[in-house]
Amino acid sequence: MQKYSITIEKVYIANLPDTFVSQSLNSIHLVQGGIAGDLHFGLTKSAGTREKMYPRGTEILNRRQITVVSLEECQIIAERLGVKKLLPEWFGANLAISGFPNFTKLPAGSRILFPSGAGLLCEGENHPCTALASVIQGNFSDQSIQRKFVQQAMGLRGIIALVEREGVVHAGDDAEIWVM
Amino acid sequence: MQKYSITIEKVYIANLPDTFVSQSLNSIHLVQGGIAGDLHFGLTKSAGTREKMYPRGTEILNRRQITVVSLEECQIIAERLGVKKLLPEWFGANLAISGFPNFTKLPAGSRILFPSGAGLLCEGENHPCTALASVIQGNFSDQSIQRKFVQQAMGLRGIIALVEREGVVHAGDDAEIWVM
Repeated sequence: MQKYSITIEKVYIANLPDTFVSQSLNSIHLVQGGIAGDLHFGLTKSAGTREKMYPRGTEILNRRQITVVSLEECQIIAERLGVKKLLPEWFGANLAISGFPNFTKLPAGSRILFPSGAGLLCEGENHPCTALASVIQGNFSDQSIQRKFVQQAMGLRGIIALVEREGVVHAGDDAEIWVM
Repeated sequence: MQKYSITIEKVYIANLPDTFVSQSLNSIHLVQGGIAGDLHFGLTKSAGTREKMYPRGTEILNRRQITVVSLEECQIIAERLGVKKLLPEWFGANLAISGFPNFTKLPAGSRILFPSGAGLLCEGENHPCTALASVIQGNFSDQSIQRKFVQQAMGLRGIIALVEREGVVHAGDDAEIWVM
């Protein structure tokens, strides 16, 4: 088990109707199931296109409670797309971190541990989807973005995580990653 | 995503006081949290020695709901220890499968899918512990077993899993593994 220091640059909640785009806050409260009021909150969810092994709409464990992206990887995607910047809230991120190379490849079973005692359990890579490509396109006039996005963001779109231990996370927190 | 066929040879519940040794049944019912009445049932658990990143006794997500071993790997451990056979119930197994080489190395995020529609989400390798070594020793007269067990069982003790979709599992079921 290797330990690394990271910075929690920003925290967000996706609590608006009809969009997964999130909003920046000072702090979020991680509880079992995610962040109360967030689009992805819940101990269970309906199976969708990402869970093709189950009939669509059946109730399954929600392992997509929390979405984490790295600012460095967002910047790599931006450069590949020829744009200045991509905001983590467009990705529906709940946390934007910095200081960990190849963050999207963090092995499932790794932890992100916060000063409050809260902890996240990494459930692996989050794959970019066409709905996200559409949101990103909406912020730029170059109409080739949507077509290029999924391919250019593959392997860089961050991770999904389960809340393992409850607690508050503040923007600016120093945190640790324990790699499985 | 690669798919493989396996056989569910036996199913078990660990429902006796003062032991994690499990008992064979015809069928088990997987529900969110595990198997009702099983020692490891629950959406949350107390942090223990396996979760050193959290203070002992604090409430954390229970990712050790279900224990799965492979009969072939149990036999490899038996041969290494110079004994005829090791029973999955001694390991506290809930399922004993066959037909999947290197089962303990199944990547986290992989699924085991059952004919009823139930599904398990692999949370990675289960490491052999000294308490298990003691139980195994109790079944043999050769007093070197306990000392040798943890090292000889490393990488062969099966996996832990979360219930992703509820349903019944029968001994003798044909099942699928979808490797992440």
